[in-house]
Amino acid sequence: MDLTNPIYERLEAELEKLREMAKAAGAETWEDRKKAQTPQCRFGEGGICCRICSMGPCRITPKSPRGICGADAGAIAGRNYLRFTAGGCAAHSDHGREICHTLMSASPEGSYHVTDADKLLRLAKEWDIETEGRDIYDVAHDVGFTALSEYGKPFGTQRFVSRATEERQKVWEREGITPRAVDREITTAMHMTHMGNTADAEALVRQSLRTGLADGWGGSMTGTEFSDILFGTPLPNDTEADLGVLEKDMVNIIVHGHDPAMSEMVVTAAEDRDMIEYARSKGAKGINVAGLCCTANEVAMRHGVRMGGNFLQQEKAMLTGLVEMMAVDVQCIFPALGPLSECFHTKVVTTSPIARIPGTIFVQFNAETARQQGRDLVKMAIDNFENRDPAKIFVPQNKQKATVGYSCEGIKSRLDTVTNSFVDELDTYKPLIECIKSGVVRGAVAIVGCNNPKVRPDYAHIEIMKELLRNDIVIVATGCAAQAAAKAGLMDKAAKDLYCGEGLKRVCELAEIPPVLHMGSCVDISRMMLLATGIAKDWGIDVPQVPVVGCAPEWMSEKAVSIANYVVATGIDTYLGVEPQVSGSAEMMELITEGTRKMVGAGYIINTDCDQLVQAMIDGIEAKRTALGI
Amino acid sequence: MDLTNPIYERLEAELEKLREMAKAAGAETWEDRKKAQTPQCRFGEGGICCRICSMGPCRITPKSPRGICGADAGAIAGRNYLRFTAGGCAAHSDHGREICHTLMSASPEGSYHVTDADKLLRLAKEWDIETEGRDIYDVAHDVGFTALSEYGKPFGTQRFVSRATEERQKVWEREGITPRAVDREITTAMHMTHMGNTADAEALVRQSLRTGLADGWGGSMTGTEFSDILFGTPLPNDTEADLGVLEKDMVNIIVHGHDPAMSEMVVTAAEDRDMIEYARSKGAKGINVAGLCCTANEVAMRHGVRMGGNFLQQEKAMLTGLVEMMAVDVQCIFPALGPLSECFHTKVVTTSPIARIPGTIFVQFNAETARQQGRDLVKMAIDNFENRDPAKIFVPQNKQKATVGYSCEGIKSRLDTVTNSFVDELDTYKPLIECIKSGVVRGAVAIVGCNNPKVRPDYAHIEIMKELLRNDIVIVATGCAAQAAAKAGLMDKAAKDLYCGEGLKRVCELAEIPPVLHMGSCVDISRMMLLATGIAKDWGIDVPQVPVVGCAPEWMSEKAVSIANYVVATGIDTYLGVEPQVSGSAEMMELITEGTRKMVGAGYIINTDCDQLVQAMIDGIEAKRTALGI
Repeated sequence: MDLTNPIYERLEAELEKLREMAKAAGAETWEDRKKAQTPQCRFGEGGICCRICSMGPCRITPKSPRGICGADAGAIAGRNYLRFTAGGCAAHSDHGREICHTLMSASPEGSYHVTDADKLLRLAKEWDIETEGRDIYDVAHDVGFTALSEYGKPFGTQRFVSRATEERQKVWEREGITPRAVDREITTAMHMTHMGNTADAEALVRQSLRTGLADGWGGSMTGTEFSDILFGTPLPNDTEADLGVLEKDMVNIIVHGHDPAMSEMVVTAAEDRDMIEYARSKGAKGINVAGLCCTANEVAMRHGVRMGGNFLQQEKAMLTGLVEMMAVDVQCIFPALGPLSECFHTKVVTTSPIARIPGTIFVQFNAETARQQGRDLVKMAIDNFENRDPAKIFVPQNKQKATVGYSCEGIKSRLDTVTNSFVDELDTYKPLIECIKSGVVRGAVAIVGCNNPKVRPDYAHIEIMKELLRNDIVIVATGCAAQAAAKAGLMDKAAKDLYCGEGLKRVCELAEIPPVLHMGSCVDISRMMLLATGIAKDWGIDVPQVPVVGCAPEWMSEKAVSIANYVVATGIDTYLGVEPQVSGSAEMMELITEGTRKMVGAGYIINTDCDQLVQAMIDGIEAKRTALGI
Repeated sequence: MDLTNPIYERLEAELEKLREMAKAAGAETWEDRKKAQTPQCRFGEGGICCRICSMGPCRITPKSPRGICGADAGAIAGRNYLRFTAGGCAAHSDHGREICHTLMSASPEGSYHVTDADKLLRLAKEWDIETEGRDIYDVAHDVGFTALSEYGKPFGTQRFVSRATEERQKVWEREGITPRAVDREITTAMHMTHMGNTADAEALVRQSLRTGLADGWGGSMTGTEFSDILFGTPLPNDTEADLGVLEKDMVNIIVHGHDPAMSEMVVTAAEDRDMIEYARSKGAKGINVAGLCCTANEVAMRHGVRMGGNFLQQEKAMLTGLVEMMAVDVQCIFPALGPLSECFHTKVVTTSPIARIPGTIFVQFNAETARQQGRDLVKMAIDNFENRDPAKIFVPQNKQKATVGYSCEGIKSRLDTVTNSFVDELDTYKPLIECIKSGVVRGAVAIVGCNNPKVRPDYAHIEIMKELLRNDIVIVATGCAAQAAAKAGLMDKAAKDLYCGEGLKRVCELAEIPPVLHMGSCVDISRMMLLATGIAKDWGIDVPQVPVVGCAPEWMSEKAVSIANYVVATGIDTYLGVEPQVSGSAEMMELITEGTRKMVGAGYIINTDCDQLVQAMIDGIEAKRTALGI
């Protein structure tokens, strides 16, 4: 494929053809619904509509500056913002909890096994859990139980907090935002925002930071760590991305959602010889599993399973007419998939009680039978192959090569290759720090988050990344942002020649990495926190000083706001391309951009113009360099 | 006072005079803000505005029947409803948790003590906690820790569930709604409603029931039990109600909110001899503590402290110009009190980090210093006595006698008095059951909930109660409903002569009770669950068969919806005078009125006309009688 340009035009042209398939089938897509929902409510967008009790709804206007109870714009927008954060923390953290339960079910003869025993043992040691002479599964269950207790323990704060820099820990203590039990922070957030409680915007923002920290240094980090223990810690491997990974002659199964427990079983079952033979007996050349959304990131990072696309592509995948099954678990699943599947042969299978969707087949996954359930789903998909309607098929062509799998361990494994093993320490970020200090690389940006129809999908992701690369800024990416990069070819090692400044290009060559490093799914932003922390520690400075910033150009979900809170609380400036819905309160806007800076040394920089946003990021990184005297 | 009539006119006339005081002071009240907020958003009122991700807000209309993600009216209204429930569960349960922490701090020499040791020991036995030969405080701390663990334990379901009838427990198991750890149910609710998760309205209603149960048979029941252990189990005692309890010549302190930990300290300090002397030294005749909202219920039930009024009277109390201090803790505190206090001499003191309110004085209460903090507040109030502005004083005249304190223990203590102790068992509900069976009393209604400006404040409460009493239906009441009854004189034992049918009148005479029994604050609706369960058990039937229903004529808060969910799940039909905000979805309306009936044997009956609502209740009770053949 031609990587040069125009990237979006090519991506969009194919998606437009798929929209035509929808029209022909009498189906609608998000573009149609977006149009029908326009214009959107200004009160809601500004965060100044309160529906927290049934005296309301109340809306703030110049003529009604307070709700019936007396809550003003700051109180209302602040409460909505904290609840938004709590929703995101709940989603990520509950995902992490499910993974703990999966680990609790792991056994040598069961569906789930300990894959990264070293990581498990390191965590056991970190938590003072006896490992000597013990069966690895006994250790796993003790570690799992300890992690589960972090969700609800009556006293104390999150264990993972001790991984942060000492300076961060002190700041969190000083500000009263060290997170307690994960679920307790969520309940506290819901209680504070209940009618007749906190109306002070600053207190609401403070609890947002704490709730976010319970996610990033609690639930999300648990999700990442335990997924690695169960399914393996990602290391660099090659894959492909975009809808072109769907195969015309194969049984196509899309795994979609977030929690890898179900998708791992489908991936495994699709490799069973008897399943492949069964597919062949039905006239297919084989079984092709592709990922969507963060599930794509999970299975690509660990197994090189190809990535079908990100959030706003989920309907498009079905519109190809090539998908025998979409098996989904939790989060970011369009309810629209149910009615859409009535127009296509695709079977949509929901697998979690957390995400029940009308018009789908519900197969509740459970750890005891998961291995067999994975096989049942694959068989169901194979049996559906014959139901394809040739008149409804469009075979996408877009796909790009990508190297993925840059967990912290994966990044360090590459950095070790450029280390002089005779004189240098291994397993550190020091080679990267040297590059930043010397200016060969100016800094790093973590680009994360969703797609959002409020902006042209993937455009901001890709445009911002290109500009950063041109300015010798290395990128780490997760979630839908990572897939945007992959679809644009920015995770192809060859991308260095097309997009990077001379310094970054040289570093990519030496370390044999693409200039955009795929760090995983949205819970894996916890990896980014450890990366930034690791760099700060190896450098001997605190996180806010490191020339690293975060960016969510197209964020959409509550999870993104929870993430933004913990990223900021960790001391990393966060650049947003979509406005948080608090703009109706000048007080809240000030608090999230400047107020948090006084508390934790970082804040949001908001700009819906992606050219201006990326320039602000570059300026921000250069300012941090100047402050460091480099 | 003349109890006959017209009740509301008298109540309203005085409130209207207080509004004039506001106007004279250049202050606004909720009536002004309500007017400015009219008309209210129909999408919000109907529950079909979705603000759960930043692709939105999305609103359901005939032309846009789905949000951008594809969520339809049922999904959107269902998610909003579940979040509403989760907010309520969080508030009640976190209140319960705080009481547990208070018990954990109890010690013979500390601020807090074990008052009802028998209740503590009974609970310890129920939970298999060793009591023999142990210090009562060691037992208290073990029981407290065990209760705290119910908020976050990784496995198992709520301990108090075993108090329910066996039939209820089976129904909850069958329907998959037996509540797990309290905070976990809240997190699950938040996760399920996150973008891209459950869009199936029935699943959302089911989790609402479960989340409600985690409140009623978890957090709220904990709040009630542990408050009784710490501050004493209420027994019948006399008090007075309405703003007329404020004393022109005394230092008036209003305690307002929900958690009794702070208010108990203020009540105690106000009885300290040196404080009374200090007040006298400042020209006051003494110190007068009065309650507001559920705090009024807490301190009236236990100490006979007089009740200043309910939710929509909080500003009015300050408008008398007689209140030296309003000390508040959590929930239902108008943020309007902050700005209002700028126009009056009243000091508004917030005491909990859960309820930070601009324009107030923040004194964070903590268990170690609470006794002294109570004294500090009382002194601050006394010092403020001299700042009264005679021009801004209006002395309310309305007050009514009330006998309160009908905990389950309190009710049984009265029933024991009509038992023939030679032949009958003591400490049962059998005398009441006999009255119901014979038809002397037709049944019972639990009237609960708030005030809501959507209806004429207290009107529905009082009108419905009068009609029920006329029909020989005994009433138990909590929260703002209970105070409406008290203000109307319905908790005066003399009320039997004015309002009751012959059967109920006779029963009130014999048992020496008022016809409306005050059972406490809103968390104390857990007492009502135990009452209904106790009656069912003593009768040998399940709760849905008992001629008992619930009613919230003027509900307003998320807590009310959480309550409604657990009342329904407990098998008690619940009559609502304000529509739950789901009317934009026919599916949701069907689910909450009829759908839950199939799951748990009860549902909502909604009617905004209080005459029709009370008639439906009477019909409902008679239908249950018919079904029982009585």
